[in-house]
Amino acid sequence: MFSNRKEISVEWGDCDPAGIVYYPRFFEYFDSCTNALFEKAGFRKPELLKKYGLLGIPMIDTRAQFYAPASFGETVVVESRITDWGRTSFQVEHKLYKGERLAAEGTEKRVWTVRDTTAENGIRSEPIPQEVKDKFEK
Amino acid sequence: MFSNRKEISVEWGDCDPAGIVYYPRFFEYFDSCTNALFEKAGFRKPELLKKYGLLGIPMIDTRAQFYAPASFGETVVVESRITDWGRTSFQVEHKLYKGERLAAEGTEKRVWTVRDTTAENGIRSEPIPQEVKDKFEK
Amino acid sequence: MFSNRKEISVEWGDCDPAGIVYYPRFFEYFDSCTNALFEKAGFRKPELLKKYGLLGIPMIDTRAQFYAPASFGETVVVESRITDWGRTSFQVEHKLYKGERLAAEGTEKRVWTVRDTTAENGIRSEPIPQEVKDKFEK
Amino acid sequence: MFSNRKEISVEWGDCDPAGIVYYPRFFEYFDSCTNALFEKAGFRKPELLKKYGLLGIPMIDTRAQFYAPASFGETVVVESRITDWGRTSFQVEHKLYKGERLAAEGTEKRVWTVRDTTAENGIRSEPIPQEVKDKFEK
Repeated sequence: MFSNRKEISVEWGDCDPAGIVYYPRFFEYFDSCTNALFEKAGFRKPELLKKYGLLGIPMIDTRAQFYAPASFGETVVVESRITDWGRTSFQVEHKLYKGERLAAEGTEKRVWTVRDTTAENGIRSEPIPQEVKDKFEK
Repeated sequence: MFSNRKEISVEWGDCDPAGIVYYPRFFEYFDSCTNALFEKAGFRKPELLKKYGLLGIPMIDTRAQFYAPASFGETVVVESRITDWGRTSFQVEHKLYKGERLAAEGTEKRVWTVRDTTAENGIRSEPIPQEVKDKFEK
Repeated sequence: MFSNRKEISVEWGDCDPAGIVYYPRFFEYFDSCTNALFEKAGFRKPELLKKYGLLGIPMIDTRAQFYAPASFGETVVVESRITDWGRTSFQVEHKLYKGERLAAEGTEKRVWTVRDTTAENGIRSEPIPQEVKDKFEK
Repeated sequence: MFSNRKEISVEWGDCDPAGIVYYPRFFEYFDSCTNALFEKAGFRKPELLKKYGLLGIPMIDTRAQFYAPASFGETVVVESRITDWGRTSFQVEHKLYKGERLAAEGTEKRVWTVRDTTAENGIRSEPIPQEVKDKFEK
């Protein structure tokens, strides 16, 4: 199955007074990993947005579980893959490892989103092009 | 039931190129709201940590759902309360409103955590003092 | 002279493993204070951008000096004012106090910036409208 | 002269509604580059702190100038070096390039800092060990 592995160096500025990663930063890590997953499939984010007229792929539901803390100076590896394609949304799964140990997991549900000035929030979902989905099947 | 309401101004720097709050910032909002909830119960975080010898109250499981975007210049209100007390962990619920509209929800499971140099990660959980729980029953 | 005072609560997530504000966060504080200064003058950022077709007021030169650390749970007050108006740029000064004590200072030079697809970076400066400057003279 | 080059991928979450790097993030970049410079000299930050009983190397004065914007999807390179060693402080210079173009510059003055519960802020400076300085002369 198509997936991506991304190494992330935990920075001093990612950590809180307890000396461990401030948990919202893990969501920043996961977001960059989703972008890296798309890039591996051939869609760098700037071009993805331009080609499909996307505003972005905003999050509508995300959960993370933390099993072991990480601290500055450590390098973690995140394995990411798309676990489900819907018509206008998709799900991503991230597994974050410290060495062999699974230290955190994240799941995401995101929506293929375009601007629409007539919509309630100025944005609306749109069907995900089949050619995008196909690139993740390789 | 004991709860807290906190107003948050969405800052320019909280928003991404789509012009809406970058979703990891919502977790920063929620984290500050949990701290504000404890403060309302009489436990400012610096004194909480000092009094109970805590390293912190790290997150082990959190989920957020986003129903409507928020943008810079908007003010949102977050209602927070503790929904469950376990022996060493507790759950928090946040509801984020734009005006009357529920725009996002978050749930958290956190652990009462102390340093322990003999433990695997240098930290371990500890029973939450009854006097802490009692303050949230008022 | 026209100025603004803004109270900022130092959050747990603003602090680093040394337990003090991670210094890039001070720049986030200062940025929100510049926006608050404009808001006090009658220009909330969303309307400012819309009214004048601005991309933003990006920074071209900023310096900060830190005299005393701040930590989570503390409240600081930032006094901000515009110290100079140029044709297309302006300077802002921030003084951050912990109680009576000056704990940090920041200066900014920002540019009145619009999109221009023919320009090298896709953006260019534009003269600051006199009506904007006038609002800060009151 | 001893220096380090570090590649940084500009992330979506580093950028603001103008679509360009939110300038406080450049200070996060520079901070990670200072840590990378020390690491290249043989001092990974966790070990540096432990070996010398340091609280950290907090910033007391920093300035950055921005010549060209950077946006998500771009990779920048930062060249960093120490330009001056004082008794208890030192200066760092960063040059951030987009391709051949100098897009930003930063300077830092940091202090070798230890905890001291008898000091006014609970911290004080200490002379920088000669062996540390020596490693940057190689």
